[in-house]
Amino acid sequence: MTNTPPAVTAAILVIGDEILSGRTKDKNIGTIADYLTAIGIELREVRIVPDEAPMIVEAVNALRARHTYLFTTGGIGPTHDDITADCVAEAFGVSIDVDPRARAMLLERIKPEDLNAARLRMARIPAGADLIANPISKAPGFRIENVFVMAGVPAIMQAMLDNIGPTLTTGAKVVSETIEVGNLPEGAYASDLAAVAAAHPGVSIGSYPSMTQGGFLNRIVVRSKDAEAVMRARGAIEALVARLRP
Amino acid sequence: MTNTPPAVTAAILVIGDEILSGRTKDKNIGTIADYLTAIGIELREVRIVPDEAPMIVEAVNALRARHTYLFTTGGIGPTHDDITADCVAEAFGVSIDVDPRARAMLLERIKPEDLNAARLRMARIPAGADLIANPISKAPGFRIENVFVMAGVPAIMQAMLDNIGPTLTTGAKVVSETIEVGNLPEGAYASDLAAVAAAHPGVSIGSYPSMTQGGFLNRIVVRSKDAEAVMRARGAIEALVARLRP
Repeated sequence: MTNTPPAVTAAILVIGDEILSGRTKDKNIGTIADYLTAIGIELREVRIVPDEAPMIVEAVNALRARHTYLFTTGGIGPTHDDITADCVAEAFGVSIDVDPRARAMLLERIKPEDLNAARLRMARIPAGADLIANPISKAPGFRIENVFVMAGVPAIMQAMLDNIGPTLTTGAKVVSETIEVGNLPEGAYASDLAAVAAAHPGVSIGSYPSMTQGGFLNRIVVRSKDAEAVMRARGAIEALVARLRP
Repeated sequence: MTNTPPAVTAAILVIGDEILSGRTKDKNIGTIADYLTAIGIELREVRIVPDEAPMIVEAVNALRARHTYLFTTGGIGPTHDDITADCVAEAFGVSIDVDPRARAMLLERIKPEDLNAARLRMARIPAGADLIANPISKAPGFRIENVFVMAGVPAIMQAMLDNIGPTLTTGAKVVSETIEVGNLPEGAYASDLAAVAAAHPGVSIGSYPSMTQGGFLNRIVVRSKDAEAVMRARGAIEALVARLRP
């Protein structure tokens, strides 16, 4: 096996009643998952919680302790139900107040006479945090230690993620190979595939059925940070599929 | 306030490396959220974990203790990476073996001579569980106490959910009203909206921005099990929007 850097792991915390009621369908989890996978950070865990301080604080503290990074989305707007910044400050046990840097960012878009108390809420930043620029609507996200607090609106979240990306410590990228199995049933290859998995302990091998008009369509995915090990496992799987296909 | 039955709460546990890698985009969370909301069950929490026994067992035990119901998706197929049934048995401290009822269901679709060891894995059911019929591919899900274990393939999950639905204890349905605010900025109405929220403690009021080509488009959503309280809050919000709109 080649030498690989230590694993860099991450969690996502999605904050918002609207996701749990089904009213809004989350798109951010998939976007962040793709982004992290592409830069060699392993997403290990996701949670979705409502706009309630005890549940947000508990999840922030559980997830930041377990992973290299925690990314949150949602709850940083100007309305009364936007409580993420206060909850993150509480989780870290630090104070929170209007940050002059964040206030200056808001003034790039908002006239001084329109910067009312509600809008100033968007400049409330926990003590010690760095700001994450928001090129779209200016109200910033922030980073405190290993926690990145981002907007819930997908276009703004994506822009913040693009700003954060270059600052992250990344691990070895996971190499992934997909073997199209077609309509060969999972049950026909599962035992042989388990034997291949046992013989290739350095790689993760998954079998993924999907349904189409014509019935099941199966794919086997081989993943590892060790590209040569992936290719060896891929070869073994292709051989077993060729043997079993009618 | 009218009398309402006690709250019935739920959590979802999504199990699968493929969701965390971004390879598969989850659709089940939104489907289950809509379903539960429609029948008066409050979805309070969602977690996504990888195909790893310790994380699955921990999440099952944390979530089943906190909520009326826990719904899991994924990891009940015939391949080696399908470990959900074993993990649920471990979480409950019960044995797991091939269940004759589940075996009979598999034989509705699979010829006896094709019922190999891998396919029989799909008939392994924790002791004491009831089966959830799968009209599409026959391999059943199961219910043990307050935990419902379902497939990850969306069409099969949906069919299992339809079978489960009539067996659930439901609560009072949440009534939801949406006020379209258009391009009136959140920052222009946030203070007044907070006052409305404070004056209507029995209802949940959220403000949801979305981005369009023409800029932000905002909606305010009022939710409560008390329909009259929702209508009162809606009236107050419509009055404030009418006052602020240019």
